[in-house]
Amino acid sequence: MTKKKTELHNAGYKAWLEYPYIQSSTVRERYASWCYNILISKQDHPVIKSAVQELTCGIQGMLDIEATIAESQDKDIQACITIGTFDSHHPLITHTFSEAERTEVRPEGYAIRTNTEKNCIAIGASTPVGLLYGVFAFLRLLGTGQSIEALDVVDNPVNLLRMMNQWDNIDGSIERGYAGKSIFYTDNEITEDFDRLQDYARMLASIGINAIAINNVNVHRFETMFITERYLPDIAKIADIFRNYGVKLFLSINYASPIEIGGLNTADPLDSEVRQWWKAKVIEIYKVIPDFGGFLVKADSENRPGPFTYDRDHAEGSNMLAEALLPFGGIVIWRCFVYNCKQDWRDRSTDRARAAYDHFKPLDGQFMENVILQVKNGPMDFQVREGVSPLFGAMKHTNMMIEFQITQEYTGQQRHVCNLVPQWKEVLDFETYAADTGSSVKRVVDGSMYGYKYSGFAAVSNIGNDHNWTGHLLAQANLYGYGRLAWNPELSAEQIAKEWIMLTFSAEDEQLIDTIREILLTSWNIYESYTSPLGVGWMVNPDHHYGPNVDGYEYSKWGTYHFADLHGIGVDRTMKTGTGYVGQYQGANVDLYESVATCPDELLLFFHHVLYTHTLQSGKTVIQYIYDTHFDGVDRADQLKEMWQSLEGKIDDSRHRQVADRLNEQALHAREWRDIINTYFYRKSGIPDQHQRTIY
Amino acid sequence: MTKKKTELHNAGYKAWLEYPYIQSSTVRERYASWCYNILISKQDHPVIKSAVQELTCGIQGMLDIEATIAESQDKDIQACITIGTFDSHHPLITHTFSEAERTEVRPEGYAIRTNTEKNCIAIGASTPVGLLYGVFAFLRLLGTGQSIEALDVVDNPVNLLRMMNQWDNIDGSIERGYAGKSIFYTDNEITEDFDRLQDYARMLASIGINAIAINNVNVHRFETMFITERYLPDIAKIADIFRNYGVKLFLSINYASPIEIGGLNTADPLDSEVRQWWKAKVIEIYKVIPDFGGFLVKADSENRPGPFTYDRDHAEGSNMLAEALLPFGGIVIWRCFVYNCKQDWRDRSTDRARAAYDHFKPLDGQFMENVILQVKNGPMDFQVREGVSPLFGAMKHTNMMIEFQITQEYTGQQRHVCNLVPQWKEVLDFETYAADTGSSVKRVVDGSMYGYKYSGFAAVSNIGNDHNWTGHLLAQANLYGYGRLAWNPELSAEQIAKEWIMLTFSAEDEQLIDTIREILLTSWNIYESYTSPLGVGWMVNPDHHYGPNVDGYEYSKWGTYHFADLHGIGVDRTMKTGTGYVGQYQGANVDLYESVATCPDELLLFFHHVLYTHTLQSGKTVIQYIYDTHFDGVDRADQLKEMWQSLEGKIDDSRHRQVADRLNEQALHAREWRDIINTYFYRKSGIPDQHQRTIY
Repeated sequence: MTKKKTELHNAGYKAWLEYPYIQSSTVRERYASWCYNILISKQDHPVIKSAVQELTCGIQGMLDIEATIAESQDKDIQACITIGTFDSHHPLITHTFSEAERTEVRPEGYAIRTNTEKNCIAIGASTPVGLLYGVFAFLRLLGTGQSIEALDVVDNPVNLLRMMNQWDNIDGSIERGYAGKSIFYTDNEITEDFDRLQDYARMLASIGINAIAINNVNVHRFETMFITERYLPDIAKIADIFRNYGVKLFLSINYASPIEIGGLNTADPLDSEVRQWWKAKVIEIYKVIPDFGGFLVKADSENRPGPFTYDRDHAEGSNMLAEALLPFGGIVIWRCFVYNCKQDWRDRSTDRARAAYDHFKPLDGQFMENVILQVKNGPMDFQVREGVSPLFGAMKHTNMMIEFQITQEYTGQQRHVCNLVPQWKEVLDFETYAADTGSSVKRVVDGSMYGYKYSGFAAVSNIGNDHNWTGHLLAQANLYGYGRLAWNPELSAEQIAKEWIMLTFSAEDEQLIDTIREILLTSWNIYESYTSPLGVGWMVNPDHHYGPNVDGYEYSKWGTYHFADLHGIGVDRTMKTGTGYVGQYQGANVDLYESVATCPDELLLFFHHVLYTHTLQSGKTVIQYIYDTHFDGVDRADQLKEMWQSLEGKIDDSRHRQVADRLNEQALHAREWRDIINTYFYRKSGIPDQHQRTIY
Repeated sequence: MTKKKTELHNAGYKAWLEYPYIQSSTVRERYASWCYNILISKQDHPVIKSAVQELTCGIQGMLDIEATIAESQDKDIQACITIGTFDSHHPLITHTFSEAERTEVRPEGYAIRTNTEKNCIAIGASTPVGLLYGVFAFLRLLGTGQSIEALDVVDNPVNLLRMMNQWDNIDGSIERGYAGKSIFYTDNEITEDFDRLQDYARMLASIGINAIAINNVNVHRFETMFITERYLPDIAKIADIFRNYGVKLFLSINYASPIEIGGLNTADPLDSEVRQWWKAKVIEIYKVIPDFGGFLVKADSENRPGPFTYDRDHAEGSNMLAEALLPFGGIVIWRCFVYNCKQDWRDRSTDRARAAYDHFKPLDGQFMENVILQVKNGPMDFQVREGVSPLFGAMKHTNMMIEFQITQEYTGQQRHVCNLVPQWKEVLDFETYAADTGSSVKRVVDGSMYGYKYSGFAAVSNIGNDHNWTGHLLAQANLYGYGRLAWNPELSAEQIAKEWIMLTFSAEDEQLIDTIREILLTSWNIYESYTSPLGVGWMVNPDHHYGPNVDGYEYSKWGTYHFADLHGIGVDRTMKTGTGYVGQYQGANVDLYESVATCPDELLLFFHHVLYTHTLQSGKTVIQYIYDTHFDGVDRADQLKEMWQSLEGKIDDSRHRQVADRLNEQALHAREWRDIINTYFYRKSGIPDQHQRTIY
């Protein structure tokens, strides 16, 4: 076969399912020998159909082979890929996987083995969705240039719930969306572009996502009616699409629904009419969506209604919903982002960082078995750097999952490149000291530490209707990385980045892979370096949160202060002299953060108020560190541009230009950050830069 | 006649045309003796009709008399009011006013005389609108309790143009509107509520306003089409309504109209097709509105299109339009609010304050006779305190008018009381030293100093569809005061305030009059005291401009900086070390502002960058002044509340409560200002308050 011409790339729409044609004929032919035939079992299951479709699509793309699909192996067939669930009685599957091996594969897991005896590569699983994941895994092996001659893989997802939260509104807007409008809704109606939804479902399945809440946690007027007959039939159609890819549908609900759409005059969770109303409502939902996942709830937070209105606590508030959902296997995901957003900046005793722990820790053990608390990774709000939430590990008897934010609200809004996988890794690896040994956050949220019935990952999506899904093409790597980590938190940021690059661009060009990997893996540190320093966070423009504004939230009611004066800066959260937040941590973390001597530099201003002349562990003063990182950050943002430029010609023009444009914008905007931050602190401290660089 | 019960007040809708029933029977009977009969001439002119209507309405309200309207004086009539133009040949008018007296009355002026011989009070004028003004003046005499037994008044407006600028948009919004939505437009159509428009026309006429531009100077897509057949017929209807009250209609136009609605590919003012297009357009407009006033133009300002696009200057730009309007007596009002709104905050050499002068002064003498430059009172943008624009007096050969802002964009947004009349008086009385003697701003803008063909006042309206027109009831006094000053800049702020109070509430209660007058006349100073200090301006939240934000515009592109650091604050605009702005002034003003020793305290930071420890002429340091005024301002805002409270029972509940609510809000919000400003400067300077008051 002659070398196939590279197709005009579709400007990133296919993301990591690009399946780029393999240029090396050696590699291609090695793979091809297995891929002319696909053997499937007789199962007519929509998810298996999706799996087969994906397998043929991937083979077509990477190898330019139209594979033959058959249900049994002809004598003269040299080799094949075979897929089937263990209970399909497909002879090749049965032959390949022993009883013992099958039990190793959990419901959503899969096994892949090269069966040399039968001349096939078998992909087996307990369930259709396991098969689908197995197919994606197999294609990933091809896409990343792995040898497939002696495969022997068993892979199970580490986390039970691997969830996506869409903050999409029925009017087509997306709260904190930076990639266009919603693909779910347009002009106050549910979309009719089911193809796009299916493509999204496929992307999610390819990285192992198995749950999605399709509307904003801030549930407005029309979205409140999602659980009524006005919208339910259309929502059922969305559920169908995602179900075909093993993704379960959840809805964000308005806690005041009994009043707003139920005609009751209360939403008190202990009111019998209210309880009855929710029970009937749940029955109505399950009639239309039999495998409905459950409710995602933001209550008593940032002006949302909740049980506090009725002097009930959050256990009472969530259990009422859980009771209604329990008979159907549904769950309540209850967000812990509860704090006073009407704080007085003059009051230094209140500390927003304390809020989630203070609200929820006392309720440990009072939640029903099908309630999960969804806790943001940090105690503030998805800053470029903040402490890890002390709630992780603090609640032995309460299901818990972690919430990340893929959409880059505070990390460059997909105009700056900021690969968040290294940040998430740090959080997941964070040792809570909640148990004697190995009590890292990832062990809390995978449920293994306390034996949670439900647990896992949730994240705020970063996609919209931009053609490339995420605005910044490189932001696709965050979506990809989130799914991969949710599947297996042990994967390294390096490996995830490399996979994404290979699948998205090419597995065959070392320079390309190394360059983009370098860009991705340094990007968080670069972004941090020219924005808010040493863990202090915020310093952004209010409301939209883009761009520098040192005092932007300093005198506001949001509880996000830095207290900079002419002498120093930072928030004293110690037990001895500060808000006492440090005391919410456990074990060695308490001493670590309590003492200014041991507190890690990168979190110093999160935990301590220090002089500008305070010497960091790095040996620099705080003020000089601020100047240095901000000058340095801009230089490094410039380097990102150059690195990307070196890839011209190696990537199709469309995608190359997209990224080049964003990196240019980032470099320019980094100067805004540098100059405003440096000038602010120079004017405030009066301390000149040791290197006499220009500060305005 | 028994004492008439006070009607339920209509919550402020009638404003100063309330015509409150006179409680004192002595006064009432003294007036009544003249008012049972109104004699009019035979003229069937709509403006005279308005005048007669007003006269009967006022007499009805204040005296509860249904006056008889007749065209000649019966023998047995004891007394009457007679109104007529001098050319009406009405015998009483002819008898009352001599030829010499008549020539004293200019086109819009009027004369009022008590003709004891004929037992009548005669109101005479050269024109119908003069008569209308005469009637309003007569009613004002009654409303303020003046004696009318020996009237002998000749009054002419000092300014030719007394204009209102509506910043209303077709979607019903009002740029910088703080009193509801537009009364002119709703949902992208021109209103059908002509009654409200007529009530507004009547209010304007009552204070002598004779021109109105009915749409926002920022002309958006649909408003650009106001000069097309799509909207012109409806606009003609608005013109009819205002014409009946002597108010001429103007339109704000989009300089790019030839492109946007004309199908041309340029708007170059020297392009013959463009010139032709505008000529044809003007003919089209005058066909529908024969007395159309002309165009108001914001060009090359804050992203609006203009002649700069084509490398033409503003004289070329405006003359092109003036040429088209000249045959019809139309004029071009060209705004001088031209500056670079994409300024780099790092660049200290650019100074927005310089912009208008730098742009326009070199063009003096190049504008056509029917072009007027409309210059904002100060060089920045309607701050609570700023210098007076040095353009006044600087352009001998170019018509000029002054622009004030009645709507309180930067002065409390009609949530705080801030009577602007004293501020405007200061500006008008400001000595420019442009001529040897008596060259105050008011002499510039009344045209007398340089013999301008056109000149006068313009102001941005503060009304909306709130029932009381202005949101804050006391803000009505700004609208009233603006009109009165435009008529006669020699009126004192005290007199205007007193008039407004008497007409709005009552002329018969000294305590009420004194209390409200005190509130009004101290309000500007109080507002200034707790907001941005010493003329530095700004320090507001960006975009909406409400509430304190010291660094809100400090690192932005808008050219509005204070340069506060740990040592000091202020903008050096001197010639010696600063931006040189001071050099735009003339005569003694240059030295006055150039020297920090002579610069008035209230403008110190507008002209100079000084240390916090700098001693003001008042003897206080800058920092202590900031603390003192901010603590004091809050105390005084609290006192306003108490003063108003003392009027409970003297004013109908509805209006009393409206104002009480706003004063409460003001007192609370003044604390935000006090604490944020004080904390900001304490944190920055490190200098404690001498009186150890609480700074957070």
